[in-house]
Amino acid sequence: MAKRTAIILLYCPDRPGIISDVTNFITVNQGNIIYLDQYVDRVENIFFMRIEWQLEKFAIPEEKIEDYFNTLYGQKYQMHFRLYFSDQKPRMAIFVSKMSHCLYDLLARYSAGEWDVEVPLIISNHEDMRPVAQKFGIPYFCLPITKDNKAKQEEIEMQLLRDNGITFIVLARYMQVISEEMIAHYRHKIINIHHSFLPAFIGAKPYHAAFERGVKIIGATAHYITTELDAGPIIEQDVVRVTHKDTIETLINKGKDLEKIVLSRAVQKHIERKILTFKNKTVIFN
Amino acid sequence: MAKRTAIILLYCPDRPGIISDVTNFITVNQGNIIYLDQYVDRVENIFFMRIEWQLEKFAIPEEKIEDYFNTLYGQKYQMHFRLYFSDQKPRMAIFVSKMSHCLYDLLARYSAGEWDVEVPLIISNHEDMRPVAQKFGIPYFCLPITKDNKAKQEEIEMQLLRDNGITFIVLARYMQVISEEMIAHYRHKIINIHHSFLPAFIGAKPYHAAFERGVKIIGATAHYITTELDAGPIIEQDVVRVTHKDTIETLINKGKDLEKIVLSRAVQKHIERKILTFKNKTVIFN
Amino acid sequence: MAKRTAIILLYCPDRPGIISDVTNFITVNQGNIIYLDQYVDRVENIFFMRIEWQLEKFAIPEEKIEDYFNTLYGQKYQMHFRLYFSDQKPRMAIFVSKMSHCLYDLLARYSAGEWDVEVPLIISNHEDMRPVAQKFGIPYFCLPITKDNKAKQEEIEMQLLRDNGITFIVLARYMQVISEEMIAHYRHKIINIHHSFLPAFIGAKPYHAAFERGVKIIGATAHYITTELDAGPIIEQDVVRVTHKDTIETLINKGKDLEKIVLSRAVQKHIERKILTFKNKTVIFN
Amino acid sequence: MAKRTAIILLYCPDRPGIISDVTNFITVNQGNIIYLDQYVDRVENIFFMRIEWQLEKFAIPEEKIEDYFNTLYGQKYQMHFRLYFSDQKPRMAIFVSKMSHCLYDLLARYSAGEWDVEVPLIISNHEDMRPVAQKFGIPYFCLPITKDNKAKQEEIEMQLLRDNGITFIVLARYMQVISEEMIAHYRHKIINIHHSFLPAFIGAKPYHAAFERGVKIIGATAHYITTELDAGPIIEQDVVRVTHKDTIETLINKGKDLEKIVLSRAVQKHIERKILTFKNKTVIFN
Repeated sequence: MAKRTAIILLYCPDRPGIISDVTNFITVNQGNIIYLDQYVDRVENIFFMRIEWQLEKFAIPEEKIEDYFNTLYGQKYQMHFRLYFSDQKPRMAIFVSKMSHCLYDLLARYSAGEWDVEVPLIISNHEDMRPVAQKFGIPYFCLPITKDNKAKQEEIEMQLLRDNGITFIVLARYMQVISEEMIAHYRHKIINIHHSFLPAFIGAKPYHAAFERGVKIIGATAHYITTELDAGPIIEQDVVRVTHKDTIETLINKGKDLEKIVLSRAVQKHIERKILTFKNKTVIFN
Repeated sequence: MAKRTAIILLYCPDRPGIISDVTNFITVNQGNIIYLDQYVDRVENIFFMRIEWQLEKFAIPEEKIEDYFNTLYGQKYQMHFRLYFSDQKPRMAIFVSKMSHCLYDLLARYSAGEWDVEVPLIISNHEDMRPVAQKFGIPYFCLPITKDNKAKQEEIEMQLLRDNGITFIVLARYMQVISEEMIAHYRHKIINIHHSFLPAFIGAKPYHAAFERGVKIIGATAHYITTELDAGPIIEQDVVRVTHKDTIETLINKGKDLEKIVLSRAVQKHIERKILTFKNKTVIFN
Repeated sequence: MAKRTAIILLYCPDRPGIISDVTNFITVNQGNIIYLDQYVDRVENIFFMRIEWQLEKFAIPEEKIEDYFNTLYGQKYQMHFRLYFSDQKPRMAIFVSKMSHCLYDLLARYSAGEWDVEVPLIISNHEDMRPVAQKFGIPYFCLPITKDNKAKQEEIEMQLLRDNGITFIVLARYMQVISEEMIAHYRHKIINIHHSFLPAFIGAKPYHAAFERGVKIIGATAHYITTELDAGPIIEQDVVRVTHKDTIETLINKGKDLEKIVLSRAVQKHIERKILTFKNKTVIFN
Repeated sequence: MAKRTAIILLYCPDRPGIISDVTNFITVNQGNIIYLDQYVDRVENIFFMRIEWQLEKFAIPEEKIEDYFNTLYGQKYQMHFRLYFSDQKPRMAIFVSKMSHCLYDLLARYSAGEWDVEVPLIISNHEDMRPVAQKFGIPYFCLPITKDNKAKQEEIEMQLLRDNGITFIVLARYMQVISEEMIAHYRHKIINIHHSFLPAFIGAKPYHAAFERGVKIIGATAHYITTELDAGPIIEQDVVRVTHKDTIETLINKGKDLEKIVLSRAVQKHIERKILTFKNKTVIFN
């Protein structure tokens, strides 16, 4: 059984002394640091850090860590920081339309216990994936969306997310535009998989566009969605080689393997609290 | 010593019997086929083929092969075809501006005898690369280009290309737009290396744009230039992984290795006569 | 609905005229060739071919194609050939032990209708994967193997394979040595996934060995098993970059994604009848 | 012009407080940290760190930094550490036999000013590469090696290395075993490029072995040599996809591109002082 840990993800203007102050804070209070990674963006002059320590002998009561840390260092260094505890599992909602490959990949990992995550529900605009949800015993809510009912259905979705304490959303090939309200509420917490190496082939039918252009590689991109289409912070990308022999159909098939792996890598990083976003980019800790 | 061979690259509307007719033509006349690859584009219904055979015992006189082949099959199948002989070396002109990495890579291969090619001259709009040309003993023509002299300088370039019997041109990071006349004269015979995975980051400063967008992979693309910027048929692409830790400077450095390898792979395929273009795409034989 | 086709996979000593004879055989008899790929191994002087044609108007009755083809060309060219019809689905048995990632990947594709295959049963030496089999409604046979009962259990397995008309076997991380009898009976029809880039790290615990050696890439290899451990014909391999920061645990996790994708790519090629084996190597058609 | 910096590479048993002590040491003395990366090997319980700071206002005289650092922290933490100054360029000797691709790649980068390195000489057992050395104006010493003269020639080599203040050696496809004395003298300072993804295909003719085995990927490995053949700490590896269509000749050609890029990446990391070795592995800082 892994020991309970605390994790702090932070960024702030770079100044001398941050690392030594933060590590001192933990070691002086008997915390055992098991992870420390930091990065300085020298263009923006911003310091980023992820630190994790075992709580067993930590002198500060858990409920006071955030307050102490903020008082001592957060204010001093103008930090943006988040504190997590390892036993607070992220709660993931999956949105899906008609394709199963990403959904199966997510649920297979979840079901095998690979990830420290809860999946309280799956939301879809179609019935197609209900049998998959049932295989894994996960509640499935079908909310078909038309021009007329969009606002109302999204209200129901938001209510479902709230009721289930959802902390982040995965769009596993969900073919609907997400409302600005939901994006604002889950800022940099909605992960989408786009089936091209962004920024190439933004928008619909990227495989058709790739075929048309005659590219020799195709890709997939996992990113946090923002209100601008396919323009949010990129988390992970990968590509696969194709040739003139590939048809649109074989491109789509090769792409499916990319999509599911790239999406799952991004989801894993999010679950592990190893992603910080700044402006429109991500810092991904190892 | 490799035996002399003939190579035919052809395409035509797909119909039954082409392969058997073409292979019969060669084997009946005592040619020994050493390479045959074909491909059918089933969307466009076009048949593509590359065939190579040893000439040693071939019954048809070399100077008549083209005529016989055209009469017997070219017309029957409405073929576009080109006949090459293995001892007719392609003659390559290199255009370069100020960066040496692609130039060195091309000349090192040429100098080591890796490629069946002649390099009669290097053309540049700057003096910077003259010492590299001199190292390899290749004539270097510096034709600085301004708004006022562009037409005149290009005339000189065209004359140099004609005088040297140039069959194809490699733009080894040449930072000038090529004239429409030259593009028309060397249609699908001018290979450019663009420092992004096209169609992402068309135009100038792709590494800056990639940095700005926060991509996790960068790429390079070798393509035949056409009159539309960075939109010609793609020959070869490759990518390399980057992270948030990369600066514009390290992107540029990682990109250099991509650029030179991708360009050289494309040049090699061209030299080996393994590329056919159709509409705006390439068929690349193995 | 795709039209019914016939597929011939063949190899024989290379001689002039094979392609034209085979393509003539089909076109003369009104078959419409929709796939033709061939390859000549010039070291061994062996000709390999895969040809597929639509049967709609084919003049030769289906049950006589094999006989005619053999009489006309098989004997003339000393061919080894196999004839398949597109509506004869391969029947795949999956062998599994305790890990679910490859099993889920296979079943998700099967369940989504990506592959033209039947999966009549899953065989295991453990109970662990029964719930996964049940999710997909596939019969699961648990045959625990000890030193004492190995021969007897394998007899039962062979009987199950026969009763279910199994044409090929996929070892989806099955941690038992397969009997020589089964290997002989399913020669080059048992696909294994080995969790290293063979021939590196043959045998047990390759991730531990990779960690120990400090490699910067890890891989996975799908191959047909033979009686020599991890030495059969390689079908597909892929790799992923690792660093000094990876632990054995993270190597295993990164490796899982490789294993399942590499295995599924190999299985797909087998299902599509695009693999020929010769000596200890594979020819993989596109 | 980049400001002068000091770099410390260190490792020691992991204990709380190292990072804060080391960063304090620098910031208290007015050093401006521009690079800090650290890593803890939790299996071996070893802490690794690379730190770099600008010397402009640094309070401790340069010639005393090593002494002060050792007294204050080196002994306290049982550190192994090395101090470098950015203006002390590493001095690289290149050993080469008959192949030019790696040599050109190294010299093109050197000549273009990509690397902060000096190349005072090239040593070879053949005359073949002398023209390449001459192109770049680098002294070339040809020391042919036979069974009888090996010891004597190596003595001359060692003298040349000493006379030229060589700090590290690059074996750019040098086909001779290096003497134990030279290996001992340049411990983990001799970089070799092996033309396979080690540990597969150790020893001579790896491309022939790869062809024989029918692998679907080939690789190259840069490593520090030790007295055990091809078994030293791995610095960098990369691979490229191959198919059944590749011959030994095309494998060798594809491999050349891998070899030169992998070797140059390793050399760059060494020049940048971003490699630590521990036991038989490398820690590579970004």
